Amino acid sequence: MPESSVTSFRFFLPLEPRYGDIDPQRHVNNVAYFRWFEEARVRYLRHLGLWDGRDFDRIGVIVAEAGCSFKSPIGWDEQVEIGVATKHIGRKSLHLVYAVRQVAGGEVRAEGRTILVGYDYDKNHSVPVPEHWRTTIAAFEGWPAGGPPT
Amino acid sequence: MPESSVTSFRFFLPLEPRYGDIDPQRHVNNVAYFRWFEEARVRYLRHLGLWDGRDFDRIGVIVAEAGCSFKSPIGWDEQVEIGVATKHIGRKSLHLVYAVRQVAGGEVRAEGRTILVGYDYDKNHSVPVPEHWRTTIAAFEGWPAGGPPT
Amino acid sequence: MPESSVTSFRFFLPLEPRYGDIDPQRHVNNVAYFRWFEEARVRYLRHLGLWDGRDFDRIGVIVAEAGCSFKSPIGWDEQVEIGVATKHIGRKSLHLVYAVRQVAGGEVRAEGRTILVGYDYDKNHSVPVPEHWRTTIAAFEGWPAGGPPT
Amino acid sequence: MPESSVTSFRFFLPLEPRYGDIDPQRHVNNVAYFRWFEEARVRYLRHLGLWDGRDFDRIGVIVAEAGCSFKSPIGWDEQVEIGVATKHIGRKSLHLVYAVRQVAGGEVRAEGRTILVGYDYDKNHSVPVPEHWRTTIAAFEGWPAGGPPT
Repeated sequence: MPESSVTSFRFFLPLEPRYGDIDPQRHVNNVAYFRWFEEARVRYLRHLGLWDGRDFDRIGVIVAEAGCSFKSPIGWDEQVEIGVATKHIGRKSLHLVYAVRQVAGGEVRAEGRTILVGYDYDKNHSVPVPEHWRTTIAAFEGWPAGGPPT
Repeated sequence: MPESSVTSFRFFLPLEPRYGDIDPQRHVNNVAYFRWFEEARVRYLRHLGLWDGRDFDRIGVIVAEAGCSFKSPIGWDEQVEIGVATKHIGRKSLHLVYAVRQVAGGEVRAEGRTILVGYDYDKNHSVPVPEHWRTTIAAFEGWPAGGPPT
Repeated sequence: MPESSVTSFRFFLPLEPRYGDIDPQRHVNNVAYFRWFEEARVRYLRHLGLWDGRDFDRIGVIVAEAGCSFKSPIGWDEQVEIGVATKHIGRKSLHLVYAVRQVAGGEVRAEGRTILVGYDYDKNHSVPVPEHWRTTIAAFEGWPAGGPPT
Repeated sequence: MPESSVTSFRFFLPLEPRYGDIDPQRHVNNVAYFRWFEEARVRYLRHLGLWDGRDFDRIGVIVAEAGCSFKSPIGWDEQVEIGVATKHIGRKSLHLVYAVRQVAGGEVRAEGRTILVGYDYDKNHSVPVPEHWRTTIAAFEGWPAGGPPT
């Protein structure tokens, strides 16, 4: 899964760490970053009109892979924002990347990635990525006709 | 980070999903797997005598990378176990792998990996992996004198 | 909501605190106790055959009130068990009480209580407690014919 | 613990439910409200200058009691705000109340309460509420000289 530079994100979710995100080492726990990626991802899908934010059986994707590189710790009193971008769409898969950026200063604290697979929650099996997802994402991300720049 | 076969694990944590691990799609949420990996990891370190389970400033490592491949969903009423093994020790880093295995049947539902870095929580900077960690882990994992089998 | 003595519990869920339950003060966070009560409650309902552990729209109740009295802190390396008992059944409500008890020594660390209301998740409104819930709970709790002892 | 009317709150924390707050019944899980109360409480203490948001061993209080009355369910796509107010200060205790209010419309969805006890985390025992906490809270809440209105 490709990493990404922060400058390429067109969607950011502002986020304040919760007290419950802090662990006994007094910084944001590693697991919380995946919670944040999830939040940023579903808000990205809703922002693009691909999910209505209400019908959880129509969210259309399931997580097949997730990863995160942690750069430096985050404290409870820091404000961050989560960048989300789609980097690749396969026949059944979407490759998303994330960055956790400190609002004051812009420092990147972590970079994440997930592979989502098209999923039908009524039938419990994977499905191809719908054509209107491809065109919507390509338009939002500003991809040229041939797909994302490599 | 290398994947691993379940047969190579010498440490397993039995685990029952919590109701709070279940998401609106009614299976274990992707974030919960990282919570489970964390639990299995600290119990592995305590089992090996590398951490006492009490002094959180002496846990000695910080998470630098985490990843998971999700194979098939897990329900609330399933019993699973989390395998943990160390696959490589660098000068400052430990590479651990994980498997989430269904107890009934043995099916692997997910495979995970983390890179941990030696860390001094008093001074807030990375440190080399202590020598007694190397010998303890090598002995537990049954590595030959030259290190883990490749 | 009435408190309860530990001796009156007929159902206990053994439970090991998770690393993720520990907060920056290095003991189990107050919110985690409510997560534990939830877990103990649904396992109690399943144990009594009132829920199958799979169909979340058939769980039959919604939480109307929840409370907890915290007696003394719990560390990550302690083993506890959660007692659950029904203390009263109204026309639409069930009053449950909980105790968090240290396994070694039996000390009660916290006492909880919830009021559940019968709920139809298809129609999204409250419903009376079904008659077979009353008889099943009364039998399990060993109530005399006239209801729970006061 | 006294309930409270929303109009009496002088501190509100705006809050968007997280996807991770949603449970298999597709509304905000009952446990998440206590997580929200915690968040609102520590931000209230920081807002009043009673905690610096960084030194977790100097937070000065421990939770002795917590409770919540749930009025009606909350969906993921709703914006809420959490009101916090102090209603009473004893020699060693602070009684706080909370309201979860829908931003659009102002409907109160839940009401909470906690009793906090002054606590010294170095010595692990309870302590009296400091005098400057009393004067700071009384001034912020607009109490007359004799204490909170009854």
